Amino acid sequence: MTEIDALPHPFDTAVTLTPAADGLLRGRTHPGYANMVGPFGGVTAAALLQAVLQHPDRLGDPLSLTVNYAGPVADGDFDITARPVRTNRTTQHWILELAQDGVVTTTATAVFGTRRDTWSDTEADMPQAPAPETVPAGGFPDFIRWARNYEMRFVEGPIPQEGDGEHPDSTSTLWMRETPPRPLDFPALTALCDAFYPRVFLRQGRYMAAGTVSLTIYFHTDAAELQSLPDGHVLGTARTHRFSRGYFDQSARLWSRTGTLLASTHQWVYFKD
Amino acid sequence: MTEIDALPHPFDTAVTLTPAADGLLRGRTHPGYANMVGPFGGVTAAALLQAVLQHPDRLGDPLSLTVNYAGPVADGDFDITARPVRTNRTTQHWILELAQDGVVTTTATAVFGTRRDTWSDTEADMPQAPAPETVPAGGFPDFIRWARNYEMRFVEGPIPQEGDGEHPDSTSTLWMRETPPRPLDFPALTALCDAFYPRVFLRQGRYMAAGTVSLTIYFHTDAAELQSLPDGHVLGTARTHRFSRGYFDQSARLWSRTGTLLASTHQWVYFKD
Repeated sequence: MTEIDALPHPFDTAVTLTPAADGLLRGRTHPGYANMVGPFGGVTAAALLQAVLQHPDRLGDPLSLTVNYAGPVADGDFDITARPVRTNRTTQHWILELAQDGVVTTTATAVFGTRRDTWSDTEADMPQAPAPETVPAGGFPDFIRWARNYEMRFVEGPIPQEGDGEHPDSTSTLWMRETPPRPLDFPALTALCDAFYPRVFLRQGRYMAAGTVSLTIYFHTDAAELQSLPDGHVLGTARTHRFSRGYFDQSARLWSRTGTLLASTHQWVYFKD
Repeated sequence: MTEIDALPHPFDTAVTLTPAADGLLRGRTHPGYANMVGPFGGVTAAALLQAVLQHPDRLGDPLSLTVNYAGPVADGDFDITARPVRTNRTTQHWILELAQDGVVTTTATAVFGTRRDTWSDTEADMPQAPAPETVPAGGFPDFIRWARNYEMRFVEGPIPQEGDGEHPDSTSTLWMRETPPRPLDFPALTALCDAFYPRVFLRQGRYMAAGTVSLTIYFHTDAAELQSLPDGHVLGTARTHRFSRGYFDQSARLWSRTGTLLASTHQWVYFKD
């Protein structure tokens, strides 16, 4: 291992939580994961998941996570409370809050649990896409600081450029990978679930104010399956069902390059046109 | 109005909450909405939404709701706590818990808010289906008590019958309506979002132990649009993306007969085969 490899990956720094008084976990926003206003929502979601992952009472792997973005997160320290509300034989339910100076900015619920072998089948089709190495990287403008931590290779539905008009559908499909590369674990997968740009930009062919209100992730994969993946390339595909009166939904699926459906994720987004 | 019309609809009785000590809201399970074990999850979700709807500090209409079924709800009284964690100018975030004798059985988060006119478009296609009046009602066995409160008219993917084998896909599409009829409001729409039977039954051609772990609803509609619907018929379509190691996801959309996408909903379900 060279010295450079020994440095922590910026993502690990961004989701580092340190036990503080009253059972709180203290984190700090990372300038490398800044969004237009406050941090990238994906890294906030990952920090909330991390709070459960490192909790001594945790049972099993994440099954589902819902994060509600109640208010802006300011640059600086934040505190997470993670409360195991109920622990059953195979599942465990958590309520989480992220606060700054005592003001709640983000709430979440998570379900963790153990899995066992059953009949299994992936019914959804992975979108057709050329190998990631053959798709040019790029797409996010440089001023979106957090996106510099990801290689994005758009197969369909890239971010609109100046002069692009309206687009008939809201689907984007892209290869995503952390840069520098890093093994894909649950926090990283969580952040990738929020890496799709707002679908209204694509439909309208322009940027506007928009932000996630609530994000839900279903983890179809377990830790062993994640560890067995050949690399960190993930194919994501996202679309909207209805835009109406300042809000829209956005549903996405994330696949390994080997065709494993890793997560399905849904979010509710506000926009101002 | 005849005397029989003046009786409360059983659904209204099932979601009636009465203020109790310590800011709690007291409800009671309704025998008419019993499931195999405990109450129908849809009516529990509706009661949690109702707790916000009748709260004096509520802002606007529901935008999103996530309900986590942490443990079984026993027949009898239950208490709901509804806490407005953060109120912004146009959105409001809630954390809810449902408990019996102090033991939490269900948690939830909800986002409420106001809407304003913007560019709007429904991108998803409503499934093709004949008019509800031309589709025979039936499908759920009589011992599923809660289902007797709904007319179900399956267009595709009915509940498997004895001797049905495996089925290649998990899609069900059906007309649903409360019986006796009742105006479609947010609690009723919430309950309908959980009225799809577990997709694994359809794929495997048989019943097995299965239950919702977490349910999320995005409300695409507002109160005025709901009130303008010609009747309570809702076309629902549901499918699964991946079944794996004891769990699967289930995504659904609910449409008015006039082609309005009312809600999209997703859930995480456990099963034992």
